[in-house]
Amino acid sequence: MTHNIAILGASGYTGAELIRLIAGHSSMQIKALGANSKAGQRLADVFPHLRHLDLPDLVLIEDIDFADIDLCFCALPHKTSQEVIAKLPKALKIVDLSADFRLRDPEEYAKWYGNKHAALEQQEEAVYGLTEFYREEIAKARLVAGTGCNAATGQFALRPLIEKGVIDLDEIIMDLKCAVSGAGRSLKENLLHAELSEGYHAYSIGGTHRHLGEFDQEFSAIAGRPVKVQFTPHLVPANRGILATIYVKGDAQVIHETLKNAYESEPFIVVLPQGEAPSTRHIRGSNFCHIGVVADRIEGRAIVIAALDNLTKGSSGQALQNANLMLGLDETDGLMAVPLFP
Amino acid sequence: MTHNIAILGASGYTGAELIRLIAGHSSMQIKALGANSKAGQRLADVFPHLRHLDLPDLVLIEDIDFADIDLCFCALPHKTSQEVIAKLPKALKIVDLSADFRLRDPEEYAKWYGNKHAALEQQEEAVYGLTEFYREEIAKARLVAGTGCNAATGQFALRPLIEKGVIDLDEIIMDLKCAVSGAGRSLKENLLHAELSEGYHAYSIGGTHRHLGEFDQEFSAIAGRPVKVQFTPHLVPANRGILATIYVKGDAQVIHETLKNAYESEPFIVVLPQGEAPSTRHIRGSNFCHIGVVADRIEGRAIVIAALDNLTKGSSGQALQNANLMLGLDETDGLMAVPLFP
Amino acid sequence: MTHNIAILGASGYTGAELIRLIAGHSSMQIKALGANSKAGQRLADVFPHLRHLDLPDLVLIEDIDFADIDLCFCALPHKTSQEVIAKLPKALKIVDLSADFRLRDPEEYAKWYGNKHAALEQQEEAVYGLTEFYREEIAKARLVAGTGCNAATGQFALRPLIEKGVIDLDEIIMDLKCAVSGAGRSLKENLLHAELSEGYHAYSIGGTHRHLGEFDQEFSAIAGRPVKVQFTPHLVPANRGILATIYVKGDAQVIHETLKNAYESEPFIVVLPQGEAPSTRHIRGSNFCHIGVVADRIEGRAIVIAALDNLTKGSSGQALQNANLMLGLDETDGLMAVPLFP
Amino acid sequence: MTHNIAILGASGYTGAELIRLIAGHSSMQIKALGANSKAGQRLADVFPHLRHLDLPDLVLIEDIDFADIDLCFCALPHKTSQEVIAKLPKALKIVDLSADFRLRDPEEYAKWYGNKHAALEQQEEAVYGLTEFYREEIAKARLVAGTGCNAATGQFALRPLIEKGVIDLDEIIMDLKCAVSGAGRSLKENLLHAELSEGYHAYSIGGTHRHLGEFDQEFSAIAGRPVKVQFTPHLVPANRGILATIYVKGDAQVIHETLKNAYESEPFIVVLPQGEAPSTRHIRGSNFCHIGVVADRIEGRAIVIAALDNLTKGSSGQALQNANLMLGLDETDGLMAVPLFP
Repeated sequence: MTHNIAILGASGYTGAELIRLIAGHSSMQIKALGANSKAGQRLADVFPHLRHLDLPDLVLIEDIDFADIDLCFCALPHKTSQEVIAKLPKALKIVDLSADFRLRDPEEYAKWYGNKHAALEQQEEAVYGLTEFYREEIAKARLVAGTGCNAATGQFALRPLIEKGVIDLDEIIMDLKCAVSGAGRSLKENLLHAELSEGYHAYSIGGTHRHLGEFDQEFSAIAGRPVKVQFTPHLVPANRGILATIYVKGDAQVIHETLKNAYESEPFIVVLPQGEAPSTRHIRGSNFCHIGVVADRIEGRAIVIAALDNLTKGSSGQALQNANLMLGLDETDGLMAVPLFP
Repeated sequence: MTHNIAILGASGYTGAELIRLIAGHSSMQIKALGANSKAGQRLADVFPHLRHLDLPDLVLIEDIDFADIDLCFCALPHKTSQEVIAKLPKALKIVDLSADFRLRDPEEYAKWYGNKHAALEQQEEAVYGLTEFYREEIAKARLVAGTGCNAATGQFALRPLIEKGVIDLDEIIMDLKCAVSGAGRSLKENLLHAELSEGYHAYSIGGTHRHLGEFDQEFSAIAGRPVKVQFTPHLVPANRGILATIYVKGDAQVIHETLKNAYESEPFIVVLPQGEAPSTRHIRGSNFCHIGVVADRIEGRAIVIAALDNLTKGSSGQALQNANLMLGLDETDGLMAVPLFP
Repeated sequence: MTHNIAILGASGYTGAELIRLIAGHSSMQIKALGANSKAGQRLADVFPHLRHLDLPDLVLIEDIDFADIDLCFCALPHKTSQEVIAKLPKALKIVDLSADFRLRDPEEYAKWYGNKHAALEQQEEAVYGLTEFYREEIAKARLVAGTGCNAATGQFALRPLIEKGVIDLDEIIMDLKCAVSGAGRSLKENLLHAELSEGYHAYSIGGTHRHLGEFDQEFSAIAGRPVKVQFTPHLVPANRGILATIYVKGDAQVIHETLKNAYESEPFIVVLPQGEAPSTRHIRGSNFCHIGVVADRIEGRAIVIAALDNLTKGSSGQALQNANLMLGLDETDGLMAVPLFP
Repeated sequence: MTHNIAILGASGYTGAELIRLIAGHSSMQIKALGANSKAGQRLADVFPHLRHLDLPDLVLIEDIDFADIDLCFCALPHKTSQEVIAKLPKALKIVDLSADFRLRDPEEYAKWYGNKHAALEQQEEAVYGLTEFYREEIAKARLVAGTGCNAATGQFALRPLIEKGVIDLDEIIMDLKCAVSGAGRSLKENLLHAELSEGYHAYSIGGTHRHLGEFDQEFSAIAGRPVKVQFTPHLVPANRGILATIYVKGDAQVIHETLKNAYESEPFIVVLPQGEAPSTRHIRGSNFCHIGVVADRIEGRAIVIAALDNLTKGSSGQALQNANLMLGLDETDGLMAVPLFP
């Protein structure tokens, strides 16, 4: 049985990544590609690496007939996404990759994103899309809100530790190194090759990055009390990958065992032997997340390091994993490709 | 039915690429991984990006039991390869990725590689592995010699043109831009990141690159008279990809049509619309080869540009394609993954 | 004695490069920085790497008082440049880095740039700024038109060979590999890091690149008859550098001697020993141009390879060299910095 | 007056960087280049970017006549350095760039470097070379031990804060991002372009990096009690630059003012306006260190970020700055070159 798929926002990087992954899926077929700014163009012109695929041209979202569509991926910018989704058929299964439905409290949304939410009804039914922790809800959901790429990385490393109470909740420092594709295909001076390559810097320093809204929401819910982490992302000259170096207070061995136990039956989360640390180059282009734990020389402190590909496990791979659940398919279908190295 | 596979030279880049591709194959199973210098190590230690795969540890080649093996890939350095293959079981199907069995004339081999050939018997039965042009011979072969990555790129662009006589055979200039993984995982000063990144240069200038032996052999055979091309490779700061910019004398439209016709039913060779040109970023990590033809402002001259991934279509992908033929399988099995972009 | 300098277009890469070089000049002082789109900003905000310099803020060009200025660099986009220069004081010494005054024939200008020239009077007095070949004219000029970066690279390799008649004028093929800063600081999708890094491609293929106008003008003038070269530039993932690989028919040794003789007293043009070839990494950030000559295996053919930094010798360094001549200073003042490697 | 200089270890990156900087010095002249493994070679063959300089060939260290030499830079690997320096003339002024004379306590040296010190006499007289904090001692020293590149970066950010007691001494976490040239020109698999580019990872995790010896020594001395910091370096795909992101407990404004006051008359240390953060791309190739301070959203916490070029301010630039002091010259001579961007 074939499942008909639509992708809105097909001319961006997460859209292209969805197409790449679905091309290897056993039972999904792409029926419509929406991309307002590039409507009318052939996919081969927008993404020449997809030119061998037999796919429909890009169209205006309003020209898509959703009657046939079994599931729709929304890879649109935040704010646009909520406006579009508010108008989609009420019964259509949707996986949203934007930030629009991640925060449950509309006040929090307004605080972090600077505008009132325009699709409160949909927001209420949305399920947070961090697959490994919301599997059952996702399987039954109509609308799933994909986790932010940084937020996913940090949560994979920390959720089991917070849940089991093995680290000090008031002393969590996350130093992230992020590749440039996380910023999307937008025309900004600081994303030019000449500006970005050969250098690196921190941004959204001091607790201003929007993914903190997700950390606050999720970590506080798990802990049953407010948890605020420190989080500083850095932009690094590479195209794919997030490396989260997390400084915690707790016993390294206990931390390692806690993570090992939490993920032992997960297909995509790999906990490395204690003392080993991951690299983004070893998960590149794949849906895997590698996590390592190392004890610090200072007693009672540990470093937890997680690596994933922001475009795959951090967004489009995660989205496909969720879609598989929503359609009752094997969760790993289309997602087992080996990382590309070198 | 499952086909049992051995890979010799599993700790190099082409070995790792074979493992990556075979992981997505529907009916191959890796039974043995030979890698003399790293024998005894787990694959996860040598290539952490492969750590989720359930594969045997690396072993000495002499410790492999070939009784069970249906096909063996040799991803060893040239010279070593011929010595190893000379001792393998006489009936074992072999795809060799080295340069050792590409040249039919032992004199030519000695001229380009500087040593006498040590496995003349095997050399005699070897079939040249440029799949699209030796398909029938490969299907029946016991030993297939994989084409060199540069040699493959140039031949995809030129063979149909030489065969149909649509270009001047004495005025062919190939300017290649090659990524660094083509040089392998060897410890050389000029392959260090600090030496290589942020700069580019020509090497083996003036007709000294060994892949010229293949060009001479193949082009002369097609033309029925000696053909000597000019060929200058350049090392470019990227990990994967070969871009061949080829300057020829002939009519661009005729050239384009000739290539279009030659490759119209090929699954991996894509001839772009006339006037368009390929980029290595659009075939990265895939088995595709993109070819473009553009007319020059000087009448009677054209530029033919071909792009492929040296590790995939240029070596390990090509090798798997040949193995599929040798085992009577679908030629594209394991090879349809979409290029990774960005 | 201090020479007062103005730079128009100070917020682009060639503007920043001028500031960098002039900071090391013994007798120039920057008095005004014009940058219309970023007027009002401090230089430290636009180019943080220049923050330690004590320099004026960016201002509107029309707000600059040129009474005090001894020499003005125009690092504006072409077309804008001619409009601005037409209104500058008639006696002001100007070095223009744009394409606007390079072509002597207004028809040729219109053909390559698509618009009628708007400053014909100034165009008539402009001197072509390839220092090593127009030294005397430049020393006396009021307005010097900087050579294009690709055009400079090709001319350094070829002018002496055309002048001395040691190569076949109808068989010159230039394959250039260009770094990304040559495209400037403009917001274009194909200049994003995620689009550009890890891949390379040809552009302006088939004789459509505008720098061909300069080649045609200069080479034909030297030869005394029309000379048309083939020229294909490629974009390579690095920030600085042009490598020109030039295929010619002629005797390699004669070619090498001709270049050696032509440049033996030049401070910035280095002809390598015969058989050696340059790399862009060895001239990065400097005003040097390295040239190598290698014989091909095909008798009567040679490869000439030239490397320079597009932002230095290819534009801003060349401009400062010309300014030194125009002000009667030591030609090398501010330009002797050693290349940055690694 | 000209000062005669010898450089030992001239075939490594810090050796080449010394040559680059000294080429722009007003009164130093290089008289000898020692490089045992490449003795007999011309500098142009080992470092083609230095080919225009008129310099002596590389020689064996034992063949250098030190009678004429005013000051000797030792850019040798640690352990080799102490053996060589033990045999140099007792009165020769020496700036050592290795780790051999940084730690005052021989026990600490043995602990971090794994061998007994072989030049205890010299170690006793060595002055720690962090110019801004040991200026007077350096001016009078015979032997100066250059600070480690990571150790310098962390100390520039933290020394004034520890001295003034404005941060919690038990809660300092340093997350460093280091470029690859810091690892030198050695042939290691993990330094190959294909291994390193497009990915990033932490190394020496948990307090095992040798530069911790310097932090412990210096910070404890300033504080008058033991201070142990957490320090995790990361390898990032770029050639030059260290970015230290340091998490501290203290008031951001007080921290900023403390740094501002400490460095207000320093020529190379630039404290950015509060809330701004540095990037390695803005100090690349220069002797500058940029420091920024940002308050965290969590009250009482701040992030201090420092950036410098590991080859310049982190080693060879610092070494030249010290040599200037030792010879009674202007401290900034040869060191004012503007960073290279892009």
